[in-house]
Amino acid sequence: MTQTITFFELVPWLVLTGSVIALLFAFVFYRQMKRQDEGTPTMRQIAQYVREGAMAYLKQQYKVVVIVFICLAVFFAILAYGFGVQNPWVPFAFLTGGFFSGLAGFIGMKTATFASGRTANACRKSLNGGLKIAFRSGSVMGLTVVGLGLLDIALWWLILNACITEATIAQKLVVITTTMLTFGMGASTQALFARVGGGIYTKAADVGADIVGKVESDLPEDDPRNPATIADNVGDNVGDVAGMGADLYESYCGSILSTMALGASAFYAFGPEMQLKAIFAPMLIAAVGVLLSVAGIFTVRTKEGAGMKELLKSMSFGTNVAAILSGIATFGILALVFGTDGPQWWQYSLSVVSGLVAGVIIGKSTEYYTSHSYKPTQKLAGAAQTGPATVIIGGVGLGMRSTAVPVVTIAAAIILSFLCATGFDTDVMAPGVLAQGLYGVAIAAVGMLSTLGITLATDAYGPIADNAGGNAQMSELDPKVRERTDVLDALGNTTAATGKGFAIGSAALTALALLASYIEEIKVALTRAGETITGVGDIVKDAADANILDVLSNYNVSIMNPTVLAGVFIGAMMAFLFCGLTMDAVGRAASKMVVEVRRQFKEIKGILTGEGTPDYKRCVEISTKAAQKEMLVPALLAILVPIAVGLLLGVAGVLGLLVGGLSAGFVLAVFMANSGGAWDNAKKFVEEGNLGGKGSSAHHATVVGDTVGDPFKDTSGPSLNILIKLMSMVSIVMAGLTVLF
Amino acid sequence: MTQTITFFELVPWLVLTGSVIALLFAFVFYRQMKRQDEGTPTMRQIAQYVREGAMAYLKQQYKVVVIVFICLAVFFAILAYGFGVQNPWVPFAFLTGGFFSGLAGFIGMKTATFASGRTANACRKSLNGGLKIAFRSGSVMGLTVVGLGLLDIALWWLILNACITEATIAQKLVVITTTMLTFGMGASTQALFARVGGGIYTKAADVGADIVGKVESDLPEDDPRNPATIADNVGDNVGDVAGMGADLYESYCGSILSTMALGASAFYAFGPEMQLKAIFAPMLIAAVGVLLSVAGIFTVRTKEGAGMKELLKSMSFGTNVAAILSGIATFGILALVFGTDGPQWWQYSLSVVSGLVAGVIIGKSTEYYTSHSYKPTQKLAGAAQTGPATVIIGGVGLGMRSTAVPVVTIAAAIILSFLCATGFDTDVMAPGVLAQGLYGVAIAAVGMLSTLGITLATDAYGPIADNAGGNAQMSELDPKVRERTDVLDALGNTTAATGKGFAIGSAALTALALLASYIEEIKVALTRAGETITGVGDIVKDAADANILDVLSNYNVSIMNPTVLAGVFIGAMMAFLFCGLTMDAVGRAASKMVVEVRRQFKEIKGILTGEGTPDYKRCVEISTKAAQKEMLVPALLAILVPIAVGLLLGVAGVLGLLVGGLSAGFVLAVFMANSGGAWDNAKKFVEEGNLGGKGSSAHHATVVGDTVGDPFKDTSGPSLNILIKLMSMVSIVMAGLTVLF
Repeated sequence: MTQTITFFELVPWLVLTGSVIALLFAFVFYRQMKRQDEGTPTMRQIAQYVREGAMAYLKQQYKVVVIVFICLAVFFAILAYGFGVQNPWVPFAFLTGGFFSGLAGFIGMKTATFASGRTANACRKSLNGGLKIAFRSGSVMGLTVVGLGLLDIALWWLILNACITEATIAQKLVVITTTMLTFGMGASTQALFARVGGGIYTKAADVGADIVGKVESDLPEDDPRNPATIADNVGDNVGDVAGMGADLYESYCGSILSTMALGASAFYAFGPEMQLKAIFAPMLIAAVGVLLSVAGIFTVRTKEGAGMKELLKSMSFGTNVAAILSGIATFGILALVFGTDGPQWWQYSLSVVSGLVAGVIIGKSTEYYTSHSYKPTQKLAGAAQTGPATVIIGGVGLGMRSTAVPVVTIAAAIILSFLCATGFDTDVMAPGVLAQGLYGVAIAAVGMLSTLGITLATDAYGPIADNAGGNAQMSELDPKVRERTDVLDALGNTTAATGKGFAIGSAALTALALLASYIEEIKVALTRAGETITGVGDIVKDAADANILDVLSNYNVSIMNPTVLAGVFIGAMMAFLFCGLTMDAVGRAASKMVVEVRRQFKEIKGILTGEGTPDYKRCVEISTKAAQKEMLVPALLAILVPIAVGLLLGVAGVLGLLVGGLSAGFVLAVFMANSGGAWDNAKKFVEEGNLGGKGSSAHHATVVGDTVGDPFKDTSGPSLNILIKLMSMVSIVMAGLTVLF
Repeated sequence: MTQTITFFELVPWLVLTGSVIALLFAFVFYRQMKRQDEGTPTMRQIAQYVREGAMAYLKQQYKVVVIVFICLAVFFAILAYGFGVQNPWVPFAFLTGGFFSGLAGFIGMKTATFASGRTANACRKSLNGGLKIAFRSGSVMGLTVVGLGLLDIALWWLILNACITEATIAQKLVVITTTMLTFGMGASTQALFARVGGGIYTKAADVGADIVGKVESDLPEDDPRNPATIADNVGDNVGDVAGMGADLYESYCGSILSTMALGASAFYAFGPEMQLKAIFAPMLIAAVGVLLSVAGIFTVRTKEGAGMKELLKSMSFGTNVAAILSGIATFGILALVFGTDGPQWWQYSLSVVSGLVAGVIIGKSTEYYTSHSYKPTQKLAGAAQTGPATVIIGGVGLGMRSTAVPVVTIAAAIILSFLCATGFDTDVMAPGVLAQGLYGVAIAAVGMLSTLGITLATDAYGPIADNAGGNAQMSELDPKVRERTDVLDALGNTTAATGKGFAIGSAALTALALLASYIEEIKVALTRAGETITGVGDIVKDAADANILDVLSNYNVSIMNPTVLAGVFIGAMMAFLFCGLTMDAVGRAASKMVVEVRRQFKEIKGILTGEGTPDYKRCVEISTKAAQKEMLVPALLAILVPIAVGLLLGVAGVLGLLVGGLSAGFVLAVFMANSGGAWDNAKKFVEEGNLGGKGSSAHHATVVGDTVGDPFKDTSGPSLNILIKLMSMVSIVMAGLTVLF
């Protein structure tokens, strides 16, 4: 036992080392990028505009977020210190989660705004040079996110492990891990603001720029005569880069934290050693994944003069190698942690494998439905020949149909990762079996995100290439440069599909694990309040002696309980309401932008001939103000509704809410992402010269589709994954209050 | 006891009498309408075209439906006679349900196609005359639906009561009522075909006609120069009339049958007398509702020269009086049935009242979000100033936001009707309490639909007025006539809102009751197979002795069971997949229609100057073929998926599937209906002269919105209500097979 504990004592330091390595490489790549030439004076100037706009917006956004965080932290402090229904560490853990999430977004964006001009400049010479800069800069983001995530996790573990005292070690471990979930809530809250605020910003600018620029005035994308063009490019950075960074930071930490919390509580009855194993396993998988990501990033190098196919091959090779090695390493790590004398090590490893396979399938399905190399998007483009209405109808239909494969896959992954973990024990609702199975589901999510360092790099480099294209266009460089950045951008869309599959799939599994953590946290809260519960078979027990089934039974969480059903309805509605609010916000802000751009075209003379200078600043202001104002209500709703449901409908209602939100939210997210992606690529398909090419009526129709798809895929859709998890985390953190009533 | 039984023996005959009265009045109104003049020879000719097209389509549709029905009936016969896992009456009950549903649609449509020409003709003289004919013809549909529904229910009750023999009366009652649910499944299956097929037909024609006619060639609606115009008018009949008739026949019978089945099984332990009370209560409420509907219809008469407001008042008065009287009568009926010595009579009455209030709130909310008298739709119209993309984004946002009030209302109605029925007993999961509460939910749905006779009349007269307008336009009558029919049409939209609120709300409650019936049917199937179950507290019992909680416990339907969760995911996905398939079908068919109309405009000379005659027939054929081909897959999916889930994931998976489908489907249905309604009325708002009026760019943008909204509100959205219930009924009918595996 002593020897084991010794190894266990090492684990947090190993994780910390992994985190430092990731951050170190991020810094090295950042420096490499900064050393590159930023190009002509015009290019520098434009990059400077975009950088300033982006930073100014981020500052504004963080101001609002800081106020919200302070209010919530004070609220938590009152609950913790005033009423004793919460752990005293909660307010602080909450704040650091928010801080690191914001930091990840900030660093990613800073890098991107420095990188895009340099990428454009490199593309003046070669495609390969552009790829290198963009991809390495994307890697900065990827490694920063995972590095900061592991750093926060390891540090909090060390602090809480040293400071918290409870009656038994087993109880202490449960309290530590559930407290750490609060920092997940902080990360989720910040991520939601970043995604919603950034999403509204970028899409208001994008939609506004497209409607007046492309549809009404036949200007190309990113034309410097379009007053909204700087705002559009700023938006790509605050939405697609900073928003995505915060989002994936939240996903990454969420998956690890929920697995740790579930591990501690699910194996409570097995004693502290088993708990520790279950807590450290996800941390180690993540730490090793970081190292493999770094290795994978280094494999992405192509020979000078390499073609498009080789580029793609090289990037896919990097991510695939990292993922496959991570899958193999998982067997080793789990054997090391759990020992090879029991079945756990290979059982949980198989759970991880089923998660990885599910992620690949979801990614492939996304690619099939949204890439214009395949029939669905090509047919959608064909519908443009009969006008915008049929494009919209077709895109909505496509997105809705495209939910089938991911949902069946995730349903199968849930059942398989559960059953693998239990050794195919069919008595799924026996206390030990249920806990073990749910832990399998949770750790599968960790496996899916373990190589986030590199998959995020392939995702984040897309917006950088996109912005590089903007810079090239606005600086009026040789059209060849734009062509090259477009190739990079398109490449990014393809490589990102798999990463997105993992992100979406892991969100569902993590949310499921959080559901279980919620029940465990209810138990902790009951224990703290010294209550008894009526468990299975109507036996009255002290809450501390209860298992997960006793808690479930105490609250009648049968699917036929009308309270559960009412919760499910409200949960499903929340997903729609949230999307409705964010869609509306984009629509409203975009309308304002259109009115402003039209005004400038009319009032500023010579603007369309390139003789007058547009007032870029006004457009930036419109987007900033709209995003500020509009992000508050949807984000607060996500926090307040679970609290209200908890107070009104109790535990059964909250569980219903979370299940309804999770299921409808997941399907809605896939629908919106795929509809939006398909509309985007249908437009690109036409722009490549099909069906009449640029300027044809089919092109105009696809531009309408793309415009509608913008908030689908970049504002509402991606926010849903965060919403689902945030609602769970709020419920967990508020469990003490729910139990009081 | 003997005396009570005597009264009970009377009940089916009373219901039969109610049904005959309804059918009689329907016949009288039909004759009254037929006696009216159909107008000029052109008017007659056009009415004849539409009538022929509609009948031809219906024949085609019924051919396909008959084949499907025969296949399913044979399958049921094999299950029943070959494997003994089903009742021998099942195939026959299934067939009659389908037959009566088809008959209701057929009669409604026949009436509508005779009435629209006559309405147009009456509008040449006065608005009031037009109203009378249209409304009375709508009443034919309303009364036919409820009359046939009650007829089928009463007849099957009498037959099965005379023929079925079981060990005890209590068991016999359970078997009778669950067998009768099969006829509900027949009705739902036919309704789904009618809604989907009719919906695809009408929207393919409508969208096609709008895109080429309104957007590309600036022709007004229903212009005779538009080749798709006859198909469009035929579509209104096969979709909005026949489809709606079948849909509401299904809802009406479904609510009554599910309450009867739940009554028999939930009160099984209380003995046959209590069961009979619970079975007859919904039948009597429905029968009295029919009489009140007839009375209400007679109150709708306005003085010659009455204004628009008076018309509206008169109609609202009729529906409100019927609804209020029905609410009051419910107290009397339930006192008569349950006796005033226990609390049941007023408890269940309060459940009904909470259902009625919920229906009114949902109706009002629908009106608020979709009528252009209110801000949301006016703002949506405002978004048209910045083009079609912002209209689409705004409409999607509006629809999604609009789900909040109906969902919270229905969640509250579920809890309230449940709690009222149990006398606010908070131990909701005690066996007796759960059964009683769910019965309360079920009977609330019956109350909501009890005055369907008149609410459907106010709904069905809309399409008749719409078609009258088409006839007036095509016959080139004085524009005043068209204005009058437009007033009637708009009036119909307003009065229909409340009716739709009741239909949507009752669908959710009925589906919930069906969920409970499913569990009861599982028990029946287990009993038939002579199995034992492991109930609450792990006690092994004979299935026959089990109560609802034992069954739930045997199958682990806790919301944390991964199988349940997988089912919930798949259920939510089903709603989206189904909508995706039907949206796509409309998009595809509409594209074909556009190509054809464009071809005719190009190839048939003088078509746009009115000198050449368009080839109406080709367009009718395109719609017919498309509807035929495309309706099969989504409809079969609704039948096959629950069977597959039952075989693969068992009872827990099926319950998850139904809950996921119900919750996501309900929210999605509200979203699609309200988005579609708002787009429609935003267009009308502009056409009334706002924001530039007809022909302005804002108008073009709203036409795109309206076109997209067509399949939202008339194809996919309304089919969802049927889908939800059909999946439940299939699961119930297939319970025997699920249990076998």
